[in-house]
Amino acid sequence: MPIRSAVMPGPGLPVEVRELPDPALEPGSVLLETVASEVCGTDVHLQHGRLEGVPYPIVPGHVSVGRVVESRGVEADALGEPLAVGDVVTFLDVHETCNACYQCLVARQPNRCPHRRVYGITYPAAEGGLGGWGERIHLKPGVRILKIPPGLTAEDVIGGGCGLFTGFAAVERSAMEMGETVLVQGSGPVGLAAAAFAGLRGAGRLLMIGAPTARLELGRAMGVDRTWELEETSEEGRREAVLELTRGRGADVIVEATGNPAAIPEGFGLLRDGGTYVIAGHYTDAGPVSINPHADINRKHAAVLGRWGTEFHHLVGALRLLARHRDRLPFARVVGGRYGLGEAERALRDVEDLRVTKAIVTPNG
Amino acid sequence: MPIRSAVMPGPGLPVEVRELPDPALEPGSVLLETVASEVCGTDVHLQHGRLEGVPYPIVPGHVSVGRVVESRGVEADALGEPLAVGDVVTFLDVHETCNACYQCLVARQPNRCPHRRVYGITYPAAEGGLGGWGERIHLKPGVRILKIPPGLTAEDVIGGGCGLFTGFAAVERSAMEMGETVLVQGSGPVGLAAAAFAGLRGAGRLLMIGAPTARLELGRAMGVDRTWELEETSEEGRREAVLELTRGRGADVIVEATGNPAAIPEGFGLLRDGGTYVIAGHYTDAGPVSINPHADINRKHAAVLGRWGTEFHHLVGALRLLARHRDRLPFARVVGGRYGLGEAERALRDVEDLRVTKAIVTPNG
Amino acid sequence: MPIRSAVMPGPGLPVEVRELPDPALEPGSVLLETVASEVCGTDVHLQHGRLEGVPYPIVPGHVSVGRVVESRGVEADALGEPLAVGDVVTFLDVHETCNACYQCLVARQPNRCPHRRVYGITYPAAEGGLGGWGERIHLKPGVRILKIPPGLTAEDVIGGGCGLFTGFAAVERSAMEMGETVLVQGSGPVGLAAAAFAGLRGAGRLLMIGAPTARLELGRAMGVDRTWELEETSEEGRREAVLELTRGRGADVIVEATGNPAAIPEGFGLLRDGGTYVIAGHYTDAGPVSINPHADINRKHAAVLGRWGTEFHHLVGALRLLARHRDRLPFARVVGGRYGLGEAERALRDVEDLRVTKAIVTPNG
Amino acid sequence: MPIRSAVMPGPGLPVEVRELPDPALEPGSVLLETVASEVCGTDVHLQHGRLEGVPYPIVPGHVSVGRVVESRGVEADALGEPLAVGDVVTFLDVHETCNACYQCLVARQPNRCPHRRVYGITYPAAEGGLGGWGERIHLKPGVRILKIPPGLTAEDVIGGGCGLFTGFAAVERSAMEMGETVLVQGSGPVGLAAAAFAGLRGAGRLLMIGAPTARLELGRAMGVDRTWELEETSEEGRREAVLELTRGRGADVIVEATGNPAAIPEGFGLLRDGGTYVIAGHYTDAGPVSINPHADINRKHAAVLGRWGTEFHHLVGALRLLARHRDRLPFARVVGGRYGLGEAERALRDVEDLRVTKAIVTPNG
Repeated sequence: MPIRSAVMPGPGLPVEVRELPDPALEPGSVLLETVASEVCGTDVHLQHGRLEGVPYPIVPGHVSVGRVVESRGVEADALGEPLAVGDVVTFLDVHETCNACYQCLVARQPNRCPHRRVYGITYPAAEGGLGGWGERIHLKPGVRILKIPPGLTAEDVIGGGCGLFTGFAAVERSAMEMGETVLVQGSGPVGLAAAAFAGLRGAGRLLMIGAPTARLELGRAMGVDRTWELEETSEEGRREAVLELTRGRGADVIVEATGNPAAIPEGFGLLRDGGTYVIAGHYTDAGPVSINPHADINRKHAAVLGRWGTEFHHLVGALRLLARHRDRLPFARVVGGRYGLGEAERALRDVEDLRVTKAIVTPNG
Repeated sequence: MPIRSAVMPGPGLPVEVRELPDPALEPGSVLLETVASEVCGTDVHLQHGRLEGVPYPIVPGHVSVGRVVESRGVEADALGEPLAVGDVVTFLDVHETCNACYQCLVARQPNRCPHRRVYGITYPAAEGGLGGWGERIHLKPGVRILKIPPGLTAEDVIGGGCGLFTGFAAVERSAMEMGETVLVQGSGPVGLAAAAFAGLRGAGRLLMIGAPTARLELGRAMGVDRTWELEETSEEGRREAVLELTRGRGADVIVEATGNPAAIPEGFGLLRDGGTYVIAGHYTDAGPVSINPHADINRKHAAVLGRWGTEFHHLVGALRLLARHRDRLPFARVVGGRYGLGEAERALRDVEDLRVTKAIVTPNG
Repeated sequence: MPIRSAVMPGPGLPVEVRELPDPALEPGSVLLETVASEVCGTDVHLQHGRLEGVPYPIVPGHVSVGRVVESRGVEADALGEPLAVGDVVTFLDVHETCNACYQCLVARQPNRCPHRRVYGITYPAAEGGLGGWGERIHLKPGVRILKIPPGLTAEDVIGGGCGLFTGFAAVERSAMEMGETVLVQGSGPVGLAAAAFAGLRGAGRLLMIGAPTARLELGRAMGVDRTWELEETSEEGRREAVLELTRGRGADVIVEATGNPAAIPEGFGLLRDGGTYVIAGHYTDAGPVSINPHADINRKHAAVLGRWGTEFHHLVGALRLLARHRDRLPFARVVGGRYGLGEAERALRDVEDLRVTKAIVTPNG
Repeated sequence: MPIRSAVMPGPGLPVEVRELPDPALEPGSVLLETVASEVCGTDVHLQHGRLEGVPYPIVPGHVSVGRVVESRGVEADALGEPLAVGDVVTFLDVHETCNACYQCLVARQPNRCPHRRVYGITYPAAEGGLGGWGERIHLKPGVRILKIPPGLTAEDVIGGGCGLFTGFAAVERSAMEMGETVLVQGSGPVGLAAAAFAGLRGAGRLLMIGAPTARLELGRAMGVDRTWELEETSEEGRREAVLELTRGRGADVIVEATGNPAAIPEGFGLLRDGGTYVIAGHYTDAGPVSINPHADINRKHAAVLGRWGTEFHHLVGALRLLARHRDRLPFARVVGGRYGLGEAERALRDVEDLRVTKAIVTPNG
């Protein structure tokens, strides 16, 4: 049975619904019926052609939830939990990390393995149902599958989407200490997740700068103590407020989740001496920015840490915490709209124009 | 007996020899007869007025070696080693770290304690012999004294000078792994020390970019495998060479020790994905630089770490290693000239014009 | 005015109420009116003479809450918050850490500084009101004072008592990762606090072995998912249950908070390969235990980490989190009884016989 | 062509020379002509049947050096270096780490992956030439191959053998700081390598306890400052000496490399408060030992770290450092005897009876 899919034909072109051939399932593969996939900022960038090496046409949708409809001998998920037809799962979109190169074996940073490929981004539509904006998803052998923990819905997971894992990874990267003041720049899915997980990891105080107001309200619902609306406050005013809250020191940890280079000088001004600044929002090139190596890094004794990509343990940790603290993490509320396959183009526009924080694609209605 | 000292009267003014009053030694203090002090790049910046909050006139000379001539009840150095008149010692130039503030107690980063003061930099000449460019040095109660280990001369220590400890601290900050490729940008005292200690800490390969040629030769004498003279090579040529040496990956660890903002974009281009970049050369403000948050930090998954100030354990570690590997670390050769008190002004010019890598001041001849 | 105090005269002797002389307040000191102090397991050990170097007679009570009644020039707490007469504060019981020895300066582990002294333990009664079981407490210059954050009561703090900070420090020491399974051995104040903070730091699952039932109920109230009553379950049964919960792997992190050597072999049997085992319950010598270096440590690739003493940042972090999550951390419920000065002996018996988890002493009624 | 091999038929049985069938080389495999393999303590234990799950009969020899004689499409080693027939290589004896289980993906400790198999230990002879005590070695697809760096001989590598990598991994695990005092318990191949790498990683002082004298001499040749012969000194005498050298504190870091449980209580007595104790010598079960959880771990604030198994980056780092510092690391001198295939039994006896520190097997003469 062919897979009806929303396909991105190339940079600058609108999404089209096409039928992809029925995948030949090799041993070790699993076929999912898609429950929900997401539309994230990266998908907008993909349509504008802002990522390198994308083999258009592609089926977008990197983080997805599906129901197992067929399994070629896969009897457990990557944690060893039994897997059966009908189970609802997600999976690590990053695949084909080689475990054989310098990055994998010596640096032990598989997130920078040059052989990795990503569902919904670096597989061409010609290779089949390898993205979430289709009725079914073909999980090739070796894809890291994770059953959705009991008590979580697909919307809990997709409401956070890839931002859930990126935010989790950013907080992990910060190595923050219990009780510290954490400031998040940005209130999109990555920023919301970073704030949520910083709170779950023992932040003493949570601050957020972002826009628009509705997103900041979501932030507060996830535990943020104080928010500043970007357009309605001045950089100087924010700085004064943060310094006042911290007796002139600045935040212990800042997570950048904006994708806007202008956030970075502001961040340095808000960071305390010896603090940690995680840069997690610049997944595409938004241009350069000017910094002062003396004041911002050397004299400040700062740690500025990039955080790229998602690893399987981020999925595991994020979903465990989401399941444990579901009542305090209303990620399902982040979902601003549900879109069928034929509405994917509109979903992209709604995300790009900030009409919704997170759009989800439900190919099977 | 008054202390004959070379005094820096103020920004832009030449050094003058003056006599400072005989210090009143309080209980817990120690008086040293100066054996050697140093002239480092910071002293040049001090004379140009490039540091904030300097209480001119001052007696420069932050890292110094002296002989104990009088002790008011101090019977051991900070490691508990017995201390007697005649012993040759150095000491931590940073004093009055409070051990009572947020930086000291909560952040546990006393190097950013706002109460710290520095011999030779933030004490006014009016307070007495609190810098190394004088015949004697008044070590106030609580100054961290360290006996020079057997087998080391004053020139071994002052040949590295403050750069010895700054380089040591930069390597410590990198948390490099054994066998990694370490590249040092800069071949002044900090760069030479960073290279030396990276070699002693298990670098698999040591690279250095710097100038002039004589300094790069010192680098090779300290274990650097390959050097590039800054003026005689192009940025693109260096990049090609480093990538070729590393199979296209770049250096695992880079230590910036130049003070030149232009080094930073070059450094990012030479750093492997997931690598660590320590910024240790920007002790004064040399202006801003443009970086790309996406390519340089986020996608690269880089760790960019500022390293400010020296702590006592850096002195201990650096001198232990210097004593242990003295034959392989010719820091005494870094000394380009010895200057009496009346020649301090000339010493500053020789350092500023790169005629010598390290000038030492020997107030007692 | 003399200080009415409950004094422990010596090993094996009952507590007596005595009057100590009015302390002479030196500059930099603060006098507190005691609001509440605690009776912890250490106090029981003190009475039995199980700690070395205790200068009996002493005034017990190391962690205490008091109201400022007099201040000799102390205008702020150790975080820089303004301090005034009437403010309710706690303070770090450890004092006189020297910041000048190898442990303080080189190892940077002031918790093992040989010069440290502890309120309520290593000060003799003859030196005055230096313990919490008295109407007033004399905070000598340099004692690290911390204002109780708004919204917290003295009972919130003393209900956890020193166990609050010991448990916090144990979780910090574990360096646990978000989402991990954490098992706590012991359900006394240290075990309850360790579980509480592990939950606040992102544990994915919380397990506890302890006794009696009422304490395990407190554990569950603080977020523990599953408990085993020590007497009512077998070691083998607990092992089977933990392995079943973790697909045969064991817990990622275990915190020992029992003071019983027998807990340690059980702990190794419950720890997954590569897991972390924090030993935080053996504050007194309860004798040796047999371990297998091959199976328990080397082949298991285990990290076994002792955790001694409290540092100021533990107080800061613990109280910030306690204030932030007060509704989820019912430490005030841990208080099993309030005792006047004349009832201190009975309080010790109630703690020793496990009739109460935490007894508090309220010298002023 | 069949592979002439020295086969260990079963526990307690002498080694026999047998011919194994010519391996069928699958795509991705490499065939080596064996240059040298080793006889290590594990081989002695294997013959005595002290390891679990060994599929006798086996071809021993886990760490080996060989010359490529045939390659089925393998064009580069695991670092990307071009690989050609005639190249001399070593390889990671651990194979089939799954990169798909909890230990590999979530704990990120592939050294405890339950699916790993080890050349020379857990492959049966029936599967072919999967151990170094044969004329040729069949490197299955995915075996991590590493070219021997220029300037190193097979004896440099095999002189250290598996101990080289185990010692390297132990030092890595210690996370020692530059300038620290490191004590190694044991002077066999693991102890010698641990001392050598601790020296290359910046130890300030290196101490060793071991036997017999000839091995301690090797230790001193590798940089050890002071040695104690186990039989000729008393535990009390060693303790006094170590405390005297460290002003009563003890060693900062201790690496256990003895396999003798009795070493462990001695080690705790020699470790400074807050020190790190790596247990790397208990690769087989030599029985239990009694420790005191209070004094040895909790109050001492010790970190006791097991270190199991070798990972590929240990090979890379160790060989890079061995190549860089070959003149200071006379591992070739550790080789006490060369044995043909027919002499393997005698080699085992010589190792067991400590007649040689390291025996090497040279199947091709």
